[in-house]
Amino acid sequence: MAVYTDVAAEELAVFLAGYDIGDLLSYKGIAEGVENSNFLLHTSRGHFILTLYERRVAERDLPFFVALMEHLAARGINCPQPVKNKAGKVLGKLARRPTAIVTFLDGMWIRRPSAAHCAALGEALARLHLAGADFAMRRDNSLSVAGWRQLYEGCRERAHNVERNLEKVVAAELDMLERDWPRGLPEGVIHADLFPDNVFFLGDRVSGLIDFYFACTDTLVYDVVICLNAWCFEPDHSYNVTKGRALLASYAKARPLSPDEWARLPLLARGAALRFLLTRLVDWLDVPPGALVRPKDPREYARKLRFHQTVKSARDYGLDEP
Amino acid sequence: MAVYTDVAAEELAVFLAGYDIGDLLSYKGIAEGVENSNFLLHTSRGHFILTLYERRVAERDLPFFVALMEHLAARGINCPQPVKNKAGKVLGKLARRPTAIVTFLDGMWIRRPSAAHCAALGEALARLHLAGADFAMRRDNSLSVAGWRQLYEGCRERAHNVERNLEKVVAAELDMLERDWPRGLPEGVIHADLFPDNVFFLGDRVSGLIDFYFACTDTLVYDVVICLNAWCFEPDHSYNVTKGRALLASYAKARPLSPDEWARLPLLARGAALRFLLTRLVDWLDVPPGALVRPKDPREYARKLRFHQTVKSARDYGLDEP
Repeated sequence: MAVYTDVAAEELAVFLAGYDIGDLLSYKGIAEGVENSNFLLHTSRGHFILTLYERRVAERDLPFFVALMEHLAARGINCPQPVKNKAGKVLGKLARRPTAIVTFLDGMWIRRPSAAHCAALGEALARLHLAGADFAMRRDNSLSVAGWRQLYEGCRERAHNVERNLEKVVAAELDMLERDWPRGLPEGVIHADLFPDNVFFLGDRVSGLIDFYFACTDTLVYDVVICLNAWCFEPDHSYNVTKGRALLASYAKARPLSPDEWARLPLLARGAALRFLLTRLVDWLDVPPGALVRPKDPREYARKLRFHQTVKSARDYGLDEP
Repeated sequence: MAVYTDVAAEELAVFLAGYDIGDLLSYKGIAEGVENSNFLLHTSRGHFILTLYERRVAERDLPFFVALMEHLAARGINCPQPVKNKAGKVLGKLARRPTAIVTFLDGMWIRRPSAAHCAALGEALARLHLAGADFAMRRDNSLSVAGWRQLYEGCRERAHNVERNLEKVVAAELDMLERDWPRGLPEGVIHADLFPDNVFFLGDRVSGLIDFYFACTDTLVYDVVICLNAWCFEPDHSYNVTKGRALLASYAKARPLSPDEWARLPLLARGAALRFLLTRLVDWLDVPPGALVRPKDPREYARKLRFHQTVKSARDYGLDEP
């Protein structure tokens, strides 16, 4: 749930006077997303999402994100479209925060995805990667292997409060991943955070992708295993091979994997598990008193990591060698 | 901010199949309200608010609230209209909670009301009271004088943690109010919680009133002083007589006060201050660990109470004797 910054009607009206989107009729804070403050706007011209970017999104990265959304939308990916103000810009300031207005997308995110949803996601992810292939801007992934040790150092001493020996498990995994992390696999724009709440469906059809604020330039199949972790485990943290196969096969049908990519999936999946384990650990240990956001449990990703450590090849995920 | 109960798209779709409001296109939790879980629905027929009533709203009171909203809307008060399902009922069950769908109202609530807003509110409140005059149902106000001692007993021993001697201030006030609380003033339907976030404006015009879940049968001018407390004090808790005069004069123009009502305003204002002081005190001392709702500061109402204790007559609020 997130509205970190409230906005008064008067200051919002002043801000909107810089846009050609009609008169403000209502706005309501949305209890979704954990990084930014989001409001649903109703104006005489339609519905929009107003986002105030909070401190966790670096202002220098915003031009990458908005250009990416424009690029993808122009290539048929249904994602929020930044709305330009009268000066032709998509970024303004409101309540001292960088602020953008994007188009509203219909669709619902799926709390309990089925194998059919996973298949639809796989295809949508491949289409996203293909549409991003000719995107000219570049943004390094600060939350890939090069960034993990720093996160680890910040929570190492308190990790055992979350789970016994967790700091040792993470240290060993980190050593291995830093040594063996694959280089040279196909790269491009990845979403990097395509959890179920960022994928809208109408029926079994993907109707939109949102929240591109972790998007970056990285190994494409790393995005695939982030989704595998986020979509294909059951509430008891067991891996559901039917969902995994659906996601991977559907992705590979739209964007065939090379033998190298296929071979590296288990190691990348361990990295993807470690990445969310680490950021959740930092958030978990760092909840300020009186926080209005409940952090997600890092142990979920410790269990996913342990599963991937037992995997012998991507065949165990349900995908045959290409 | 409030979404206490999340709802899956599938269960919502099943629930909505019982209504004639078209196909579900999106729903988003709203970060407003502190009592219930609210979602903004978009269907092929329009926009609606879905409310799941949480434990603080007694299920037996819901028929009163929905009948009242229907009654008021039929008399030209712009408030949410309960939507009937195919069986002709306005209350259903979703996620094991009593649930209703009401129409969506445009308009913004005003974070920093001006005297013009206070005047508009005064008239809207009087119109609400007049429209409620022939409402047949009755609901006692459990948060009026008869209910305060129980609240006080629940927080008496810890009140000094909030402010030194607060328990003594409250005890003396409670004794006086129980003894002198006025009987026989005009009664009717009151909103009882008409804070700025429950009043929508388009420009300087009141466009709607929402959140009738404290509405009850009580002294009409008690509703007026609840508003006086909520609208006419500055952020530093000083009373703004310009705003107070605007609210009171505008109310009295639409529904003239009797000399008795006028004379009792200061005492009622003390009661209204004590009511919110007590409920805030209970909430403040009762925040469970990990709560996602930040309670409001009870000291704000302790200061308002002290102001009203210095008032000699309603003339001090800016309203001359009728």
